[in-house]
Amino acid sequence: MSNPPRYPLPDLNSLPDDLKAKILEVQEKAGFVPNVFLGMARRPAEWRAFFAYHDALMTPETAGRTSGLSKGDREMIVTATSAANHCLYCVVAHGAILRIYEKKPLVADQVAVNHRKADIAPRQRAMLDFAMKVCLASHEVDDADFATLHAHGFSDEDAWDIAAITAFFGLSNRMASFSGMMPNPEFYLMGRVPKTK
Amino acid sequence: MSNPPRYPLPDLNSLPDDLKAKILEVQEKAGFVPNVFLGMARRPAEWRAFFAYHDALMTPETAGRTSGLSKGDREMIVTATSAANHCLYCVVAHGAILRIYEKKPLVADQVAVNHRKADIAPRQRAMLDFAMKVCLASHEVDDADFATLHAHGFSDEDAWDIAAITAFFGLSNRMASFSGMMPNPEFYLMGRVPKTK
Amino acid sequence: MSNPPRYPLPDLNSLPDDLKAKILEVQEKAGFVPNVFLGMARRPAEWRAFFAYHDALMTPETAGRTSGLSKGDREMIVTATSAANHCLYCVVAHGAILRIYEKKPLVADQVAVNHRKADIAPRQRAMLDFAMKVCLASHEVDDADFATLHAHGFSDEDAWDIAAITAFFGLSNRMASFSGMMPNPEFYLMGRVPKTK
Amino acid sequence: MSNPPRYPLPDLNSLPDDLKAKILEVQEKAGFVPNVFLGMARRPAEWRAFFAYHDALMTPETAGRTSGLSKGDREMIVTATSAANHCLYCVVAHGAILRIYEKKPLVADQVAVNHRKADIAPRQRAMLDFAMKVCLASHEVDDADFATLHAHGFSDEDAWDIAAITAFFGLSNRMASFSGMMPNPEFYLMGRVPKTK
Amino acid sequence: MSNPPRYPLPDLNSLPDDLKAKILEVQEKAGFVPNVFLGMARRPAEWRAFFAYHDALMTPETAGRTSGLSKGDREMIVTATSAANHCLYCVVAHGAILRIYEKKPLVADQVAVNHRKADIAPRQRAMLDFAMKVCLASHEVDDADFATLHAHGFSDEDAWDIAAITAFFGLSNRMASFSGMMPNPEFYLMGRVPKTK
Amino acid sequence: MSNPPRYPLPDLNSLPDDLKAKILEVQEKAGFVPNVFLGMARRPAEWRAFFAYHDALMTPETAGRTSGLSKGDREMIVTATSAANHCLYCVVAHGAILRIYEKKPLVADQVAVNHRKADIAPRQRAMLDFAMKVCLASHEVDDADFATLHAHGFSDEDAWDIAAITAFFGLSNRMASFSGMMPNPEFYLMGRVPKTK
Repeated sequence: MSNPPRYPLPDLNSLPDDLKAKILEVQEKAGFVPNVFLGMARRPAEWRAFFAYHDALMTPETAGRTSGLSKGDREMIVTATSAANHCLYCVVAHGAILRIYEKKPLVADQVAVNHRKADIAPRQRAMLDFAMKVCLASHEVDDADFATLHAHGFSDEDAWDIAAITAFFGLSNRMASFSGMMPNPEFYLMGRVPKTK
Repeated sequence: MSNPPRYPLPDLNSLPDDLKAKILEVQEKAGFVPNVFLGMARRPAEWRAFFAYHDALMTPETAGRTSGLSKGDREMIVTATSAANHCLYCVVAHGAILRIYEKKPLVADQVAVNHRKADIAPRQRAMLDFAMKVCLASHEVDDADFATLHAHGFSDEDAWDIAAITAFFGLSNRMASFSGMMPNPEFYLMGRVPKTK
Repeated sequence: MSNPPRYPLPDLNSLPDDLKAKILEVQEKAGFVPNVFLGMARRPAEWRAFFAYHDALMTPETAGRTSGLSKGDREMIVTATSAANHCLYCVVAHGAILRIYEKKPLVADQVAVNHRKADIAPRQRAMLDFAMKVCLASHEVDDADFATLHAHGFSDEDAWDIAAITAFFGLSNRMASFSGMMPNPEFYLMGRVPKTK
Repeated sequence: MSNPPRYPLPDLNSLPDDLKAKILEVQEKAGFVPNVFLGMARRPAEWRAFFAYHDALMTPETAGRTSGLSKGDREMIVTATSAANHCLYCVVAHGAILRIYEKKPLVADQVAVNHRKADIAPRQRAMLDFAMKVCLASHEVDDADFATLHAHGFSDEDAWDIAAITAFFGLSNRMASFSGMMPNPEFYLMGRVPKTK
Repeated sequence: MSNPPRYPLPDLNSLPDDLKAKILEVQEKAGFVPNVFLGMARRPAEWRAFFAYHDALMTPETAGRTSGLSKGDREMIVTATSAANHCLYCVVAHGAILRIYEKKPLVADQVAVNHRKADIAPRQRAMLDFAMKVCLASHEVDDADFATLHAHGFSDEDAWDIAAITAFFGLSNRMASFSGMMPNPEFYLMGRVPKTK
Repeated sequence: MSNPPRYPLPDLNSLPDDLKAKILEVQEKAGFVPNVFLGMARRPAEWRAFFAYHDALMTPETAGRTSGLSKGDREMIVTATSAANHCLYCVVAHGAILRIYEKKPLVADQVAVNHRKADIAPRQRAMLDFAMKVCLASHEVDDADFATLHAHGFSDEDAWDIAAITAFFGLSNRMASFSGMMPNPEFYLMGRVPKTK
């Protein structure tokens, strides 16, 4: 039903205890194990660094830090970056989370196809423009790009957040695409249907 | 809730009878009026030619013709082409129809992000490779491209179908993007949830 | 003497009456049958839609419409678009018509090689810049592009004309290139030699 | 009637004797002074080197050398290279010479728009493919490119000719475009009308 | 003498103990503190993840793993990737380490400008070709790319190493370029002068 | 130790006297014969034109001309152009001369990897931006580019110098890359170690 990944997923029970514990925790919370957790787990040292980096950027409070970006902002950057890199896993998985955080069932598809047409705030549009420059031409980032961010109320710390999230998911996108990682079917529908009581 | 289109949509009752009749027919069938029908209607002569061309390619039986491409094949070409052209309207609207025709809730997102990773038949992969060449570098199409199609069982008539659908939706994509056409919200969810009895 | 088209041209007498009548009319007027009329005729339904669309845009008076673009403006857009798409048939055929309408024997070659260096009005330069953006990056068209058009006296209706002509000939270019359509030899010289009495 | 060049053309009588003599000789032969002769003449030392290089490549017999490329082959490379670099002066001027040498009134437009569709020999197609790689991605030229040339009967000396002509006219194209050099009107029609007795 | 970084470097004594200890250790070994250690240190959680990831890939023995890539191979991938991303810091810093590990004073400049011309083994050329595809078009990596690697003796584990190093330094390149990180002057000369006794 | 050039270097004694004399003079001055002198010498007429052009641009005083560009400025243009064209020979050879003229051991690597981050004057940054446009998109050079140069104090003669050096080394880059010319090992270290008494 799905293309097999190029690298077989390891058995959960064969993994070191810390990986196993974290993965079970995610499973408990999400109801399934997102493939990235097993796809990266064949190399525990890389796995630990990958998720430590992920958490430092995506849940800054775990790093004792606050951020000027909302959770939705961050997932929006991930979705746009992953679309620019044509990464199927990340567009689908993080698009799902974006829909949930922003409470906007349509936003992920819009950002993935053409962020210039998406129903997002002008501030978010500027944020994504900056992310796209870091993603596609980081060597050309200059003072004018920072000035545009500042004009939309972003601080230099926020700029670091945008750039670092873009850079980290550029790594993630390349790993997922090269290794043939496929999104779990559960992601495709998440956040699309408004919850009813 | 949605970016307004750059060109105001005309009132249905102001349209010529033939446009109005067709639009009401579509509304009856789909339950809503897809924006492309109103977005193109401000110029009735172009509207008529646009939909005549669309129907000649997408419902070949109306042109007294059979095609080696299935309805799902055709929508798959539209989705891949529209993604390559970053056309929000067409990716969302035709991705919906693709899901329905192929009865595969995940296929549209896969084709839109990276058709090389999609769960599609090798024959469909070759079909999309040819479509992408027509879309992005039609001046380089050569005998080797036709030979690859033939090796997957496509005839020269099928090749014409693939190329013509790609070319027609290249037109459609440019019109939708330039004029700020937004997909109807209904499309985003269509075909994603398997029907239950 | 010429590369054969990939799809054999149909015999005129085998065509439906309406196609045959129109083609004979064109032949009467031009002195020969431009290859696009036979090249597209193997599929009458597509032929009818193609030329209906063509006429709606290129002879707006047949659609009961006036346009802010002159006949020369329109052919200039076609020539620039076709050059950007490397379409031999359309550059040669429409370059010929451009020379005739503009009464400028040199303009077509200039527009085809580099419209920025062509001896055209600033208004036409802005028109072609907009066309090139629709042709090559329609998803990036934004308010600033429209503002530039307005500053040169173009209305939003004119912008639609520019975009639609660009989009339609993008379709035409892809069909001609993919199917190996070659320009009739007659086109190459048309409009190059000023008529003398 | 024509865009003025960015750098005013020098007066013929103000030029050093050797430049003046050569230019008068060209004028005598061609009936007019091609703009490149005056456009480059404001710097005599560069002028001398430019035309010495030109002659060493384009009239190898003046360098005591024979070449496996015909005069038509050489102008075909110039035309294709200049089109790839969007150089109006060189496409028009050398396209004219190409038509004359090849005695094919249509070939220059074909090569300029899309050399893959031109009515040229397979050997010439391979020659232009190599030229395009030198023009656009010289750092990627490799053994396989030479093997293809050899398979079409070209020697390593011929390969040098193709590459050097492409490289030299890359220089010429940049100088003409940057300085706003326009083709003389005479070039546009040359070689298009078969001579009659 | 040097462009200041966009984000001021933190004072070493203000850093958490683990960062401070590691940085002092590096300083002791290298004789200076490479700017990346201070440039990333303003966010300790990201710093820890960054260097943990770095070490897991670049010193696999610290992760209890052996690798089919030599230390020189790994730095060669970093240098080629960083050049493709136009990252000044990483080309200069890792080019230095590459020269030392490979004991080839010329190799880093060759790999940075055009790896196709570098004096490296055919196996290393294939390794860099794969890295460049992961770097520039990871969504197009396919079975044929793996087959080429296998033909040069690389295992799937080695492929993971190549891809992961490329992906990680893509992150590093974007962070260094966006934040204006400049290479320490010491790097430029390292490994260029053969040591004499 | 080095990839052999695709075209064997001629023996110095087999060359015409003028080439031999110039080459011996260079050898006397530099301590070795830069490969470009032998690599181009197999065709004496092209050699003479190549170096005449080179000298007219790079040592304008030999052409009885002064230039608003310093010797360092000129070599900086060559280094940036050659990096954009991925020409190993020219980046290494002219990067060496750049270091010497500018007395800045680090500047060549900076300009080659990303001239936007180099420690150069704003005037030099504008100079390189113009050179890069001539190198990569000469057909788009327009009045605004000249205005930027003027604002930094460059005259139209200086603009010609920048463009001509860029164009000439575009030729040189293509010849060196296509023919497999490798830099002499001596260049790599030149100008990197400040001279001590």
